[in-house]
Amino acid sequence: MAARLTAEFLKDWSKGVNPDIQKERNTCTFNTEELTNLLDGGPEKTKRRKELEQLFFNQHGDLFSFKRRPFMTKSELYEHSVAKSVKVFQLRKEYGWSEEDYDLATRILNFDFALSLHHTMFIPALERLATDEQKAKWLPLAQSYQIIGTYAQTELGHGTNLLGLETTATFDKDTDEFVMNTPRLSSMKWWPGGLAKSCTHAVVLAQLVIDGTNCGMHPFMVQLRSLDDHMPLPGVKLGDIGPKLAANSTDNGFMILNSVRIPRLHMLMKNGRVLSLNYCITVGDIGQKIGYNISDNGFLIINKLRIPRQNMLMKNARVTREGKFTQLSNNKANYATMILVRVNIISWAKDTMRQAACVAVRYSAVRRQTTLKPGTPEQQVLDFQTQQYKIFPCLAGTYATHFIAQDMFSAYYSAYNEIMRGNNRKLGELHAQTSGLKAFLSDMSTSMVETCRRSCGGHGYLKSSGIAENMVSSLALVTIEGENTVLYLQTARYLMKQMANAVSGTKTEGSTAYMNRDFTSYMCPIEVREDCKNLHKLRDVYVQRAHKVIMAVAQKLQMDMESGQPQEVVFNNNMVALVRAARAHIHLTVIDIYISKVDNLRYTHSTELSKVMTELCNFFVIYGIVQETGDFLEMETIGLQQLEWLRQQEMDLLAVIRPNAVSLVDSFDLHDESVASTLGQYDGNAYQHLFESTQYEPMNQTQVHPAYYKHIRGLLKGSNTSKL
Amino acid sequence: MAARLTAEFLKDWSKGVNPDIQKERNTCTFNTEELTNLLDGGPEKTKRRKELEQLFFNQHGDLFSFKRRPFMTKSELYEHSVAKSVKVFQLRKEYGWSEEDYDLATRILNFDFALSLHHTMFIPALERLATDEQKAKWLPLAQSYQIIGTYAQTELGHGTNLLGLETTATFDKDTDEFVMNTPRLSSMKWWPGGLAKSCTHAVVLAQLVIDGTNCGMHPFMVQLRSLDDHMPLPGVKLGDIGPKLAANSTDNGFMILNSVRIPRLHMLMKNGRVLSLNYCITVGDIGQKIGYNISDNGFLIINKLRIPRQNMLMKNARVTREGKFTQLSNNKANYATMILVRVNIISWAKDTMRQAACVAVRYSAVRRQTTLKPGTPEQQVLDFQTQQYKIFPCLAGTYATHFIAQDMFSAYYSAYNEIMRGNNRKLGELHAQTSGLKAFLSDMSTSMVETCRRSCGGHGYLKSSGIAENMVSSLALVTIEGENTVLYLQTARYLMKQMANAVSGTKTEGSTAYMNRDFTSYMCPIEVREDCKNLHKLRDVYVQRAHKVIMAVAQKLQMDMESGQPQEVVFNNNMVALVRAARAHIHLTVIDIYISKVDNLRYTHSTELSKVMTELCNFFVIYGIVQETGDFLEMETIGLQQLEWLRQQEMDLLAVIRPNAVSLVDSFDLHDESVASTLGQYDGNAYQHLFESTQYEPMNQTQVHPAYYKHIRGLLKGSNTSKL
Repeated sequence: MAARLTAEFLKDWSKGVNPDIQKERNTCTFNTEELTNLLDGGPEKTKRRKELEQLFFNQHGDLFSFKRRPFMTKSELYEHSVAKSVKVFQLRKEYGWSEEDYDLATRILNFDFALSLHHTMFIPALERLATDEQKAKWLPLAQSYQIIGTYAQTELGHGTNLLGLETTATFDKDTDEFVMNTPRLSSMKWWPGGLAKSCTHAVVLAQLVIDGTNCGMHPFMVQLRSLDDHMPLPGVKLGDIGPKLAANSTDNGFMILNSVRIPRLHMLMKNGRVLSLNYCITVGDIGQKIGYNISDNGFLIINKLRIPRQNMLMKNARVTREGKFTQLSNNKANYATMILVRVNIISWAKDTMRQAACVAVRYSAVRRQTTLKPGTPEQQVLDFQTQQYKIFPCLAGTYATHFIAQDMFSAYYSAYNEIMRGNNRKLGELHAQTSGLKAFLSDMSTSMVETCRRSCGGHGYLKSSGIAENMVSSLALVTIEGENTVLYLQTARYLMKQMANAVSGTKTEGSTAYMNRDFTSYMCPIEVREDCKNLHKLRDVYVQRAHKVIMAVAQKLQMDMESGQPQEVVFNNNMVALVRAARAHIHLTVIDIYISKVDNLRYTHSTELSKVMTELCNFFVIYGIVQETGDFLEMETIGLQQLEWLRQQEMDLLAVIRPNAVSLVDSFDLHDESVASTLGQYDGNAYQHLFESTQYEPMNQTQVHPAYYKHIRGLLKGSNTSKL
Repeated sequence: MAARLTAEFLKDWSKGVNPDIQKERNTCTFNTEELTNLLDGGPEKTKRRKELEQLFFNQHGDLFSFKRRPFMTKSELYEHSVAKSVKVFQLRKEYGWSEEDYDLATRILNFDFALSLHHTMFIPALERLATDEQKAKWLPLAQSYQIIGTYAQTELGHGTNLLGLETTATFDKDTDEFVMNTPRLSSMKWWPGGLAKSCTHAVVLAQLVIDGTNCGMHPFMVQLRSLDDHMPLPGVKLGDIGPKLAANSTDNGFMILNSVRIPRLHMLMKNGRVLSLNYCITVGDIGQKIGYNISDNGFLIINKLRIPRQNMLMKNARVTREGKFTQLSNNKANYATMILVRVNIISWAKDTMRQAACVAVRYSAVRRQTTLKPGTPEQQVLDFQTQQYKIFPCLAGTYATHFIAQDMFSAYYSAYNEIMRGNNRKLGELHAQTSGLKAFLSDMSTSMVETCRRSCGGHGYLKSSGIAENMVSSLALVTIEGENTVLYLQTARYLMKQMANAVSGTKTEGSTAYMNRDFTSYMCPIEVREDCKNLHKLRDVYVQRAHKVIMAVAQKLQMDMESGQPQEVVFNNNMVALVRAARAHIHLTVIDIYISKVDNLRYTHSTELSKVMTELCNFFVIYGIVQETGDFLEMETIGLQQLEWLRQQEMDLLAVIRPNAVSLVDSFDLHDESVASTLGQYDGNAYQHLFESTQYEPMNQTQVHPAYYKHIRGLLKGSNTSKL
């Protein structure tokens, strides 16, 4: 029906690009292709991306199109996501993709396929945790998809405190087997992606018990389903945990085996040694967070299932035929994996902001509503100052987060190489920074994405807008892979230690180098209004604020301890302040990296591009101060005169950014199928796409809904019996 | 399958109340029944509520249970919601409910039935807009459900600027008919609840055209579907607009007929006369916002449909047989309706916070995770300061918003009675206050509800948690019935006018009475730490802040105007500041009402209750300052010493509230079916309910999903062809 209407009503509708958005493109002051190449990492990478987009959306357009997805049921979404997974795996094999190609493919497809944990968790877990002999047995099977696996760690009753996991693997000497068991309801595995319906195998984390002694948590390879008919094996009960807020997968944190049982909060008090690394280590589902993807997050109940002793993955610990347990190593590579996951989340946060900024800017350019000047046509809503103030922070935030992700990926690979050579020097810093950045940037992105969604008015509440689903998908990022408050507290612990070092004269390095500076004679570097454009002076304001907030809580902790209160009371009574300190430090990190990257563009890119990037960065840095005025004033890092100048400069920059706004989102060069939004397509024909989307709505396939015959008819005819 | 597991795994699971939550109830310092009665409005109202809960959840438990809803498809949800509607309508008739009973019923059921616009928009529109003769014809049909109606105003291209609506009703003198038409795609009606599949009739807003002259927007009664077979009539095309972010209905604002065409922004400049009432008047769907409800929000395309002249609802304007148009009145009762809708939204905001606080507090009491003190059992997460700081603001905010809604309902009815007697004195103030409060409290509630959701960790992302769906439902409140930024700007206009009056010596009254005060010798009233407990001193801090923020933007506007900039430029360049001013004023209103109500409890209720309510209010008022420290410091309403005291008092109050937290949510006395959450049931058995819910998941009805046969089997067997 809708299709027929479309033809009838679109007769006066432009098939080309909406003139309102074309006008915006004409005012661009820089070369968008230059910026696209910068974002992609070079012209060759842009080219490769376009080749893959062509493969997915032109050659396999029906399968990979977003258009029907907002209208699918959970089960249909799952099936569609499985189909896409299988196709991607086939293409991977067929074209012999590199890992980089595969990564690129997952990004283009918004991580939107159901079986991706097989490549992102299951195979890496085998590589990390299995002996060479075990790898020789299992890896070929996994790589050729003769088995499909996932990673099962989190339990119904334990997400954050992974040391409290309850699943057991009890060694039976008589049979040379482990007896795997779920002792009670709260110990069932709960959340792992692909566990409910897809996977044949899983790496299951369980407490190893030998002769009644608990030997800590270890990984076990467990077959879940028959390879003949996919039925669950005897002793294995599997199910789906039900629908999520968004139709996407989420896994609430994994712990890589770690047999050291150390109560978390005890640790802080040991002068801040980076013992935080020894607990709450979450490594998880790095493949399928963003977008409209759906996964069969499952539960697993194991009822005295027997597996051979050889199925314990024994790279780091071993159990002999006689039941002798030996801890072999405590490989730091596991920690590196956890860090990589958090860097990935930073990158996903960027992806969500990128889509939201793209949709909000484009729709605001073509949506006209009311007028500023009497007698003139309705205004593009992008003209309104309040609208710009909703959207441009996300636009700038996208670029900021892009550069931060880039920087953190480099830091990770550099640290990883050192770790592989046995040097763990960089691990503490990297752990503290990525924990805090994951928390800060996922907080920031969800807030900015939601503000963009609201800027789309009521239509932003429709699933077909794409931005609505993007927002609720992004909400998963704040609790997965380390709940944000827990992560802030980990960063705060590191900061307390570093501050103690600095105060006692030990030189701090890296992100906390500023702690060695002498702030006693601090004067706000913003002396005239023009200074508000000076990124380095602005950075100094952030430095001073971070230093003072951290120092204040460090002193408070010390004072409370000296007053004789128990450690756990002191810590709990200052938790809110510790989170605040971590945020101040990480906020500094964010603008510090952003400023450095933008600064550097002067030497590597055109003046035009450098100029527009600097303006955007300037806005972001000032916006950050204005949003947290309280902190900056309380810490006396700026005065009231400075604040007035900053507010003026902030509003002035909105007008400066305005003519480039559409081009700044065009430069992301997102394929329309990746934007996946009726409101944010390149052609700007938002209303046309909105209306066309309704043809996929199941309720529009008939004129009269069954509810009429069952319920409404009786009501209208005065009959008292609805067929309930 | 799940059902069988349940029996097996629950053998060691307590069927009674979880001891962790029982312990919390034992520490309560007040009488929860006294508080419940206060919230309900008296013991008799509590009793009546329980009678209706009994009727719905015991006598008709299968129909009204929430348990299957998170697992239903959109179409199933619609059908279920229709069935519930029909049953409620039948019960209404059968028991002869009063309007108050019906309202109570809708609240108990979370506004969760599909046809509610019939009673909340369609019938009231007839009562307001039809002549006596027209009422005599249509009302009996509507009241006996021989016709079911909705109200169709918003169009695809116009939500906010309702004067831009494009649907036309052209008078044809020859036949004495109106020709209703949708001239282009952007003019189709889009959003009205019940329009797609349910309704037989609608009141349609359209531009009246006579002899080529536009006579403004007027309401027309239009039959949409046949009363025989429910098929759309010729010339009428109907459809569903597709799934929303949450499975609930939303309507993006209606405009009650208003023929005065006044460009909005022009108005401000006319010395702020409350002309804002003349445009952007949104009155809408007051029946079905919260919860898991689903409505067939529809589109309507009218193709030269002819209706008799008598179908124009002519109470306020008339068209004669000869085509003579007369505007009869500009009834302010329409404005009153708009205000009532906003007050209702304030009340819904309270409902969303109430459910979120209930779920978050109860789940935090039974969830144990990590430990504060080494060697002790895992801690209830409610013990952590950061957790309290996430949840208690929402708990306090619920009570604040309850009292504000109560106050605004009274103000509305008092103003309405005056308006009916021809006195519009209170209208401007009430409009400004309700616009601002709707915006402020919907912003506040969505933010607090989301923070509570995050406090539930990963499980808060599951639909069965109830809090997830509650959060996305509540997001509709920020754009419906006046987008929040637009509403803040309306309040700001009123404030600019009032400030101009105050400065010129005219006495301001009501909420802006403080503008007459002399602030030149302001000294922060908080002189010692103990003053942080003094609600009246804290209120003075808010008063001073509001005054200074408003004065600052008023002066800026005047300065810019005097510099010769065009009005529209001045207005646009200060929009962000105007929103800030409105928020400062409304924040004051919020704490002002809250403090007055709590203060009054000393005289009407027990000391114990008054004490706990005062503590909660104290926390809320300080929390408000700490959250917006920047404003308070910038306006020099507090100094750094005061801020330090306030922060200390804020943290101290967390510990004070802690022992009463569970009892404060128990006092809401929400039926478990109204809480509609696996995590937040009264018995505190969160994990049990979570697991039991999975039995309703469609994907759990078989062991092997069809996706295996179509896609996965081929992959596992090495076949290259997935059945795509």
